[in-house]
Amino acid sequence: MSGLVVLLTDFGLSEYVGVMKGIIATHAPMARVIDLTHDVSPQAVREGAWLLEQSYRWFPEGSVFCCVVDPGVGTERAAVAAETERYRFVGPDNGLLYPAVMKDRLVKAVSLPVPGGASRTFHGRDVFAPAAAALANGRSLDELGEPLDGLTPLVFHRTEREGEIVRIDRFGNCITNLPPRPGRIEYTVQIEGAPAPMRLRLYRTYQEAPAGEPFLIENSYGTVEIAWRNGDAARNLGAAAGMRVRFD
Amino acid sequence: MSGLVVLLTDFGLSEYVGVMKGIIATHAPMARVIDLTHDVSPQAVREGAWLLEQSYRWFPEGSVFCCVVDPGVGTERAAVAAETERYRFVGPDNGLLYPAVMKDRLVKAVSLPVPGGASRTFHGRDVFAPAAAALANGRSLDELGEPLDGLTPLVFHRTEREGEIVRIDRFGNCITNLPPRPGRIEYTVQIEGAPAPMRLRLYRTYQEAPAGEPFLIENSYGTVEIAWRNGDAARNLGAAAGMRVRFD
Amino acid sequence: MSGLVVLLTDFGLSEYVGVMKGIIATHAPMARVIDLTHDVSPQAVREGAWLLEQSYRWFPEGSVFCCVVDPGVGTERAAVAAETERYRFVGPDNGLLYPAVMKDRLVKAVSLPVPGGASRTFHGRDVFAPAAAALANGRSLDELGEPLDGLTPLVFHRTEREGEIVRIDRFGNCITNLPPRPGRIEYTVQIEGAPAPMRLRLYRTYQEAPAGEPFLIENSYGTVEIAWRNGDAARNLGAAAGMRVRFD
Repeated sequence: MSGLVVLLTDFGLSEYVGVMKGIIATHAPMARVIDLTHDVSPQAVREGAWLLEQSYRWFPEGSVFCCVVDPGVGTERAAVAAETERYRFVGPDNGLLYPAVMKDRLVKAVSLPVPGGASRTFHGRDVFAPAAAALANGRSLDELGEPLDGLTPLVFHRTEREGEIVRIDRFGNCITNLPPRPGRIEYTVQIEGAPAPMRLRLYRTYQEAPAGEPFLIENSYGTVEIAWRNGDAARNLGAAAGMRVRFD
Repeated sequence: MSGLVVLLTDFGLSEYVGVMKGIIATHAPMARVIDLTHDVSPQAVREGAWLLEQSYRWFPEGSVFCCVVDPGVGTERAAVAAETERYRFVGPDNGLLYPAVMKDRLVKAVSLPVPGGASRTFHGRDVFAPAAAALANGRSLDELGEPLDGLTPLVFHRTEREGEIVRIDRFGNCITNLPPRPGRIEYTVQIEGAPAPMRLRLYRTYQEAPAGEPFLIENSYGTVEIAWRNGDAARNLGAAAGMRVRFD
Repeated sequence: MSGLVVLLTDFGLSEYVGVMKGIIATHAPMARVIDLTHDVSPQAVREGAWLLEQSYRWFPEGSVFCCVVDPGVGTERAAVAAETERYRFVGPDNGLLYPAVMKDRLVKAVSLPVPGGASRTFHGRDVFAPAAAALANGRSLDELGEPLDGLTPLVFHRTEREGEIVRIDRFGNCITNLPPRPGRIEYTVQIEGAPAPMRLRLYRTYQEAPAGEPFLIENSYGTVEIAWRNGDAARNLGAAAGMRVRFD
C-alpha cells in the first residue's frame, strides 16, 4: 500500500479539485496526493481515458487513481472501484477507467454505493474522493461495495492506417494513437472533416522542423502527433480530440 | 494543530503561488499545503469570499486558510488573522474572509503588522504566507499581532427570490446563492442587465437537460445554477460574477 | 539535503507535469515536490530564466530545481545538473538555468547522459525528473554525469535606461527588469515596436492608479512594471515578453 492518491479530472483550476483534496486530507491524513492532470477537455471521457491509459504506469505500484470525467453524474451510470495487478482505480463507470484497467489487467471490480445525501452533480466530492481515501488507508475493495462482472468498455478506433486524435496538448499538438510505421518518413494525412489530405513529413525533433507549416513527430507516447513549429496545429488545422485520422 | 495550510488566491497558474509555497516550506518545513483554488477571477473579492465560505468545512479541523484576493494591497486596508471555532484564517481585511469566519464563528482576530521591507504589491509573500506558516508551526494568534474588534463585513445579496451570481465555474455554469424552492420545477429567471426574463426548468442531472439551451440545476453547493449542456452559459447569456439575479 | 524538488516548466496544466511527479514519487518516495510555476509562456526560455532567477531564493536551502523549458529537446543541446552555493539545478543547457546559477554562484556542473530509450520530445520525464529524484535522494552531482566547464550563458538586456519586458503576468502586467530610479515619478516609456512613447506615472499601489489607462508600479521583484487598473496592459499595449523597453 503506497498511500498515494493520483487525481485525473476535467476540473481545470477550479475549487472542485481543492475540495476533493480536503476530503482526502480529512479521511486519510497520511495519504499523499499527486495531480496527474485536471486539463482533460470538459466532459471528454475518451480523452481522459487515453491520458490515464498512457500515464498510470509512471506512478508507484499500489497508487490509487481517483478519476472524474463524468458527464453522466447523477444518472444511473455506476460508480466503481477496480483493482488491477499493480494499481487501484476509482471513478464513474463510463469507459474512463477501462483502457488503463484492461492494460494493467483487471483483478476485481466493485460498484460504489452513492450515499443518500450525495450531490447529484459532484460525485468527486461525495463518492470518489472518500472511496480513494479509504483505499489509501488500506481498506480492500470488498469493503467498499458489491462485486461487478466488469467495466463498461471504451475502445479507441485503430487499424493499421486509421486512428483517432486522442488529445490536443497545451501547445496545440494533435496527438494520435497511431505509431509511426518503421522506415516511413512521409505520410498522406487525412483528418476527419478536412477538405483535402496533406502530405506531411516526420521529423525527429521539433527543432529540425520548418516553421509556419504542419509536420509530424513521434511523441513521448510513441505515437505520431501533428505539430506546428511556433504555432498551434489544432487551431490552424481545425482539429479536435475524437476526430478520426488516416495516415497513408 | 493540523500543520495544514490551505491556499485560496486569484493568482491562477502564476509563480506567485509557487513563491508562497517556498516561503511556507522555508518557515514551516513540516506543514503540508493544499491548493483550494487559485482560479478566483482577478481581484474578485466577492467571488473568493463565496468560494471560501462554501469550501472551508471540507478541510480538516485546525487547517490554516491563507487567502489572497487583494486589490487594495499596499493601501491602508489591514492584514488580519482570525481564529474561529474550528479553523484559522489569514488574509487582507477586505471582506474576503468575513463570510467563512462568521459561519464558523469568530473567536478572535488580530491585525498583522506589515514588515518594513515588504513589497507594496505582494503581501501574499511578505505578510500572509509567513503568518500562515507561523500558525501551522503552532504559534497562537496573540503572538502575531494586536487584537481587533472584528473584520470588515461582506454580505451577499439575498432575499427569498433575489440573489447574486456568485461564481462562474470552469464549464461556464453561473452559480447563484439561491437554493431551489421546495417542489418548484419552473422559474422565471431575470439576470441583471438582460433584456428579458427567461422561463427555465430545473433538471435533476446534466444528462437529462436538453442540449443547446439554458437550464437550471441544483449544484453541489445546494444552490441553483444556470447551466447549458455542452455549452457555456455565462458566455451565451452575457452573465458575470456579481450580477444580481431574480427567480420568480 | 532537503529532499525538496521544485518544478518550473512551460507545461501549463498538462499531464506532462503529473508524469514528472509520478517519476519523482517512484524514484524518490520521501521527496516533497513544489510547483514554482508551469505558466512560463510556451518555449520562452528567457521568461523561464528570469522567473527562476527571481524566485529560487524563496525556497529552502538544498532544494533541487527541476526546470524544463526546452524547445531544443532531442537535439545536441546538453542536459545538465549544476550545484551552486545553496541549491541544485537540473535542466536543459539552453540558458534557462544560467542567471539563477550565476547569481547563487556556480560550484560545479555536469552533463546528464540521455538514456538509450529516451523520448526525443520529453526529457522532463526521461532525463530531468530522474536526475532531480537522484539528487533529492542524496546522490552527488559526480554520480550523475561528466564535469562541464560551465553553462551556456543567457544575459538580459540592461543598461541604465533600457531593459526588457521579461514577463507578462496573469493580470496582463508587463514586468520589466529595470528598477525605478530614485526620486523619479514620471517616465517616458518606449516599448519596442510601439508607434510612440508614452508619458507614464509611477504609483505606489494599484489602488491609487487611475482606471482605464496604463501606469507604472514597482512590483514585488523590485522592478518597474507597466500595469492597467482593471485591465490587461499587455493586450491593450500590444506588448510581449522579450520586447525591449526604454525608460527616459
